[in-house]
Amino acid sequence: MKIKDIKPGKVEFQGFIENLRDKKNMQFVVIRDLSGKIQITIIKSEKPEIAEIFSHATLESTVKVVGTAVANEYVKLNGIEVIPDSVEISSHAEAMPISDDSSIDQRLDYRWIDLRQEKNQLLFQVETVIVNAMREYLLKNDFIEIHTPKLIGSASESGAEVFEVKYFNGKAYLAQSPQFYKQMAMAAGFERVFEVAPCFRAEKSHTKKHATEFTSFDVEFSYINSFQDVMNLEAEMITYGLEKTKQKYGNKIKELFNVDINIPTLPFPQMKLCDIYDELEKRYGFTVPEEEKTDLTTEAERLCEKLAKDKFNHEFLLVTDYPPQKRAFYHMRKGNVLQGYDLIWKGIEITSGAQREHRYEEIKKNAEEKGLGEDIKFYLEFFKYGIPPHGGFAIGVDRLVMLLLNVPTIKDSMFLFRGPDRLTP
Amino acid sequence: MKIKDIKPGKVEFQGFIENLRDKKNMQFVVIRDLSGKIQITIIKSEKPEIAEIFSHATLESTVKVVGTAVANEYVKLNGIEVIPDSVEISSHAEAMPISDDSSIDQRLDYRWIDLRQEKNQLLFQVETVIVNAMREYLLKNDFIEIHTPKLIGSASESGAEVFEVKYFNGKAYLAQSPQFYKQMAMAAGFERVFEVAPCFRAEKSHTKKHATEFTSFDVEFSYINSFQDVMNLEAEMITYGLEKTKQKYGNKIKELFNVDINIPTLPFPQMKLCDIYDELEKRYGFTVPEEEKTDLTTEAERLCEKLAKDKFNHEFLLVTDYPPQKRAFYHMRKGNVLQGYDLIWKGIEITSGAQREHRYEEIKKNAEEKGLGEDIKFYLEFFKYGIPPHGGFAIGVDRLVMLLLNVPTIKDSMFLFRGPDRLTP
Repeated sequence: MKIKDIKPGKVEFQGFIENLRDKKNMQFVVIRDLSGKIQITIIKSEKPEIAEIFSHATLESTVKVVGTAVANEYVKLNGIEVIPDSVEISSHAEAMPISDDSSIDQRLDYRWIDLRQEKNQLLFQVETVIVNAMREYLLKNDFIEIHTPKLIGSASESGAEVFEVKYFNGKAYLAQSPQFYKQMAMAAGFERVFEVAPCFRAEKSHTKKHATEFTSFDVEFSYINSFQDVMNLEAEMITYGLEKTKQKYGNKIKELFNVDINIPTLPFPQMKLCDIYDELEKRYGFTVPEEEKTDLTTEAERLCEKLAKDKFNHEFLLVTDYPPQKRAFYHMRKGNVLQGYDLIWKGIEITSGAQREHRYEEIKKNAEEKGLGEDIKFYLEFFKYGIPPHGGFAIGVDRLVMLLLNVPTIKDSMFLFRGPDRLTP
Repeated sequence: MKIKDIKPGKVEFQGFIENLRDKKNMQFVVIRDLSGKIQITIIKSEKPEIAEIFSHATLESTVKVVGTAVANEYVKLNGIEVIPDSVEISSHAEAMPISDDSSIDQRLDYRWIDLRQEKNQLLFQVETVIVNAMREYLLKNDFIEIHTPKLIGSASESGAEVFEVKYFNGKAYLAQSPQFYKQMAMAAGFERVFEVAPCFRAEKSHTKKHATEFTSFDVEFSYINSFQDVMNLEAEMITYGLEKTKQKYGNKIKELFNVDINIPTLPFPQMKLCDIYDELEKRYGFTVPEEEKTDLTTEAERLCEKLAKDKFNHEFLLVTDYPPQKRAFYHMRKGNVLQGYDLIWKGIEITSGAQREHRYEEIKKNAEEKGLGEDIKFYLEFFKYGIPPHGGFAIGVDRLVMLLLNVPTIKDSMFLFRGPDRLTP
């Protein structure tokens, strides 16, 4: 049974030894599972064989207990203690190699111990809820879940570096995103698809929000009228995810992370890139050189948190009307305006979305302008045999959770972080 | 709007041109989306500009139609036709490079066109439903969904070959399964986890059921009493998945694949490996040399379909009591009996499961017996600081769907097949 379900009466449960006080005549042992903690109390003279077991037991060993739970108002943990009939150590723990004041990198070396913290366990419960709520939203709206290949035949897509794989007598590459293949699903008439899967980026960056492997929540759908449809669907999906998360874990998140989950209003506010720079200057005296205004600088992005709050009383801000030059060739353009957007949450970009260029001649031209040739030839084929107008977006799951729970870096929000200098454990 | 929702009145919809008959005075065009088909009818003298558009249109081009739907008892498709007010070709299709009599490999070259077949679209709708129903079953039972790294620091686990990745100035390897990391989640006290993610196997096999990359549905959970708990959970999860699939798509699966989904009874029948060989001989006169009886041969596996049917009136058969020698070192043993199982469905193994060895000294010894050393040192660390008894299993999603819908090979059930000779598109 789960520890939180223990009521007076016969009980059987398992868990880690959280605490152990070995007094002259008594032992008090606190056992922990994912659901909670319970004290077991041993009177040494009455249960010498159990006392003997605990006299050798170490903290964090796992144990199976059979006994009787009784009410005891002096016991802090829910006023219940367990008097054991039998105890069995199922695994023995050596002395812990990390402690509360270990650095993040020391903790990552022993991530499985680090993850035993209540906060960390909650973090992955929260990730499970928000990801599956967003899935649920899409499934209710007739989306198909796909699994696209991560091994691909040519290095492709964008400037981001790609990992090379020895593939029998040749080479393969690891997909940086499912972009090309979720668009292939559009050419297949799948209409609405999503994928939650790893992406790989061979970038030597050491920021708080980058990793060489991360989980991407990708969405693509057909028959849109413009990228406004894409923004609307994303806003609704995220809002649904936040609602479900707040329902299930709102209180516990407040307690352990001191974070309030604010359910956003719909639609999310949107601003053109150039208007953002105007307002940042007017409101906060913030400015950057003219030539940097083709994109949001890190600092401008950060200030968007305050701007969204002050202007719209909102945590989210959709940024539109980027110039297309610095953007991927597969985004649709109208004149010199990108038909896409970035979504900023709490001052950090969590997603890029767009209507895609689906017209063969246009996308071919865009690719050629970027100097992309043989490597993306297979992709251009998807546009030659009929393909509906479509668009989509991608959310970095680890980054989303990092922002949701306000943990310091993506290392804290990933099950196991991967960076240029980290491939273990 | 979706084509299947078209009723008499004003309509606007999009789709692929499925058929086009250009008569002297009339045009009849069938448009298809994922939901259905509809005929649009053009009287040339009344709509010369629309007639002009369709006179140049090619099959499989995509189109947007605004018009009026009217009842017409002579129209085969639901007795409704659409009289268009405006038509816009959104993408132009070249002549189709494949046809109904193309080989599977030709079709894979143009997989996005091949996937337009109604059967193929249904296949991925069915996969979506069964995978998400199994997820739902686990989420209801307090499982956490994890995303473990596919880039790992050392070649490991089993005899299956591993892909090598150039990782900055060093090397990484692609995970053959999340086995080690889902067990790490047990050491982290996550108790119950699952993952749906790609696995990579550098095997040069060309069978109907192998691929170098495939989607694995992995489950692992703690505090089990034996591998019977693992078998029970898997059987319940699969049954739940089949029920939901039958509810949503049972009729359509019958219509397009001529397959009946039979909801299995619980618990699934189980037999010891040696008893299976005894019965195969007694019932069907089938026998193999004694030294091959340490595992199920392909032919014996195939015959298990008949055996399960004849003996238990069941499609599934759990095979237990393998000798441990040929099995992975991390499976628990009791004496010379593996505490694990294979699950056979319709004569093909879809999953292996087991209680895992969680005792540090034991697993270290098992690893050493298999000659595994430095490569799995990081994994053995997971067992040194307390880890609950646990077990789990993995299901190959593509293989599951192949068997469910009775398609010939895994190439047919994967979105994009990857094999030793195929990395494109």
